[in-house]
Amino acid sequence: MEPLRPKKTHLFTPGPTPVPDAVLREMSAPIIHHRTAQYQEAFGEVLTGLKRVFGTEHDVVTFASSGSGAMESAIANLVRPGDEIVVAMHGRFGKRWAQIGERYGATVHVHETERGQRPEPAEVAAFVGQHPNAVAVFCTHSETSTGAVSDAEGLAAAVREVNADAFLVLDAISSLGASDMQADAWGWDVVVAGSQKALMVPPGLAFASISPRALERARETTEGRWYFDWAKTVDAHRKTPPSTPVTPALTIVLGLRVALELILEEGLDAVYARHIRLGRATRAAVQALGFELFSPDDDSSTALTAVRVPEGIDGTKIPGTLKEYGVTIAGGQDDLKGKIFRLGHCGWVNELDQVLMIAAFERALVELGVDIEIGAGVAAAQRSLYGTTAGVNA
Amino acid sequence: MEPLRPKKTHLFTPGPTPVPDAVLREMSAPIIHHRTAQYQEAFGEVLTGLKRVFGTEHDVVTFASSGSGAMESAIANLVRPGDEIVVAMHGRFGKRWAQIGERYGATVHVHETERGQRPEPAEVAAFVGQHPNAVAVFCTHSETSTGAVSDAEGLAAAVREVNADAFLVLDAISSLGASDMQADAWGWDVVVAGSQKALMVPPGLAFASISPRALERARETTEGRWYFDWAKTVDAHRKTPPSTPVTPALTIVLGLRVALELILEEGLDAVYARHIRLGRATRAAVQALGFELFSPDDDSSTALTAVRVPEGIDGTKIPGTLKEYGVTIAGGQDDLKGKIFRLGHCGWVNELDQVLMIAAFERALVELGVDIEIGAGVAAAQRSLYGTTAGVNA
Repeated sequence: MEPLRPKKTHLFTPGPTPVPDAVLREMSAPIIHHRTAQYQEAFGEVLTGLKRVFGTEHDVVTFASSGSGAMESAIANLVRPGDEIVVAMHGRFGKRWAQIGERYGATVHVHETERGQRPEPAEVAAFVGQHPNAVAVFCTHSETSTGAVSDAEGLAAAVREVNADAFLVLDAISSLGASDMQADAWGWDVVVAGSQKALMVPPGLAFASISPRALERARETTEGRWYFDWAKTVDAHRKTPPSTPVTPALTIVLGLRVALELILEEGLDAVYARHIRLGRATRAAVQALGFELFSPDDDSSTALTAVRVPEGIDGTKIPGTLKEYGVTIAGGQDDLKGKIFRLGHCGWVNELDQVLMIAAFERALVELGVDIEIGAGVAAAQRSLYGTTAGVNA
Repeated sequence: MEPLRPKKTHLFTPGPTPVPDAVLREMSAPIIHHRTAQYQEAFGEVLTGLKRVFGTEHDVVTFASSGSGAMESAIANLVRPGDEIVVAMHGRFGKRWAQIGERYGATVHVHETERGQRPEPAEVAAFVGQHPNAVAVFCTHSETSTGAVSDAEGLAAAVREVNADAFLVLDAISSLGASDMQADAWGWDVVVAGSQKALMVPPGLAFASISPRALERARETTEGRWYFDWAKTVDAHRKTPPSTPVTPALTIVLGLRVALELILEEGLDAVYARHIRLGRATRAAVQALGFELFSPDDDSSTALTAVRVPEGIDGTKIPGTLKEYGVTIAGGQDDLKGKIFRLGHCGWVNELDQVLMIAAFERALVELGVDIEIGAGVAAAQRSLYGTTAGVNA
């Protein structure tokens, strides 16, 4: 394989995603201490900005952890040993809810949706109805392993109809900032997210929005958790100036202040619309190149598009070949390894970047000997992004 | 116009060109003093590397100046008031040789080639033959205003046949590092270049390679110049450790050390071949979109491609529209303003970048209401870069 020179690196994975130059500059400034007015002011801005992105007027807690830490915090604060919970699972990350629940001694009822598909709200609600003692229902918004993004508004509404008391908890790790989120309006008690997806900062920071009644539940006991305790974290965040019970991942927080500024300046609706456009262009491109989608062929998949590997191609080689051109995409995970690959379009990515990604993808296919019409992908992406005109100037 | 978000900036001008990350990192390190072993070692490496790029075993001098400063140094050191010189001009930067020559009191004979074309070596030689008293012949390699790159090997050989004594001086400012250069083998007494083109560092540093007989000529007198004096600069550079008579633009020199390392690691031949491929892809793309080339339709134009603005389009708007997408290209200069535009493919640019540039160009044309087949440009670029395959997989 002829290496591409000069080598430049482009991340098109479901996370980490590219970090904006302005964020990198902020994070590379000399480090400061977290018990200073400078940090506290930035942290206050971050908390305010996060509430807008989560669509909540209530508390958002931050942890120095990966997104899974925020998931664990939801179980640790809401579920007691012996409690029943429901997990609506449509892939690998739904499974994680079940695994953590089991570790905390819960009886887990799993509703499974075929991978690559979105869970049907009515079906999930019916399943919840079969388990009336469930204290909480855990769902996944963007299932990072397949690109399928569930209908968060519809799920909450449908489940709430059959069980008014269960806490509704959503993993929005790879969707928050890419897809609309209205935690309060839709009725999610808890929404968890991470820093390294559409929020455009490096990994290491996780969040959970918490409804007042979920916080009340957490305050019932301090047993069985310490680091991920919501009550002590909320109480610290609510102070003036806002604080944290432990040392925060302060450079990431400082970077996030800048990233949120960029997001809110672009406008949340514009950011979501951009992710939809990038998803459309990606689907148009891979289909024009003769590939079939694994994730749904609609605008729900905002963070990534999963594509089936056709017969006769070693799917595990696609990410590696792209890597030679500096372009990182994700393959399939677990038993989807070699059967799908995942093209990200999440975060600090614009429409020109996405065309570059498709150009690299075509190049990789040529390199792998796949019979494609070179240029069909980039042309389809361009048409998807910029409409069509009447004819040729030539 | 809908702005492209997030905005990222891409330079596709004939210079300055993108600066590699590794160079930016080097240049953003805490500044050091130039009378230190650390700097002297780096400067020595730069001088050695530059000789390889110039294709010379003799001296290369460096000045803290723009490329035009190195042009002036050639006139200032080789031409005395009253001397006759010949300038083979095929554009704006050829004209600069004549202007500087006049300021230094020379009688300038100008051979003019139509803009957009390359000078014919035999014609230039015939013209030189008509001016046998000329002490020096000045040519332009890559004429940045039109993209036409002259046949440096052929020009030197042809001119040398009719005048064995005249000093041959070449402006290779926008070609050095993008097109092959063999100063010694081809017989150029002096080749001048700048830092901000294919050498991939910011502007502010200029170079001249000097043949022994040209240096001898310079040593005849110190009159009429100070800053750009070759002899004192060569003498300082030749010291162990190498030095400069005045304070060097040291951060650019340190950056250039890294840039030269990148260039030599890729390999000069590979770098030249890459520039040829990028030029081919650019020509294929603009022609597929129905545009006519202004620069020659061959592999000579390695740094940029000049394109005619078709009737009915306000050509001055093309660069401004692209700018909205973060992509900087150059318009025409002087009376070519609005009649041509110039798409750069020079320096730290790879094939994926070039497809991105074409994607932005298509988008700008759509925005300006030009009737194109969207996607035809990027597809043509891809086919040019990666060959064609047998059919469609779909």
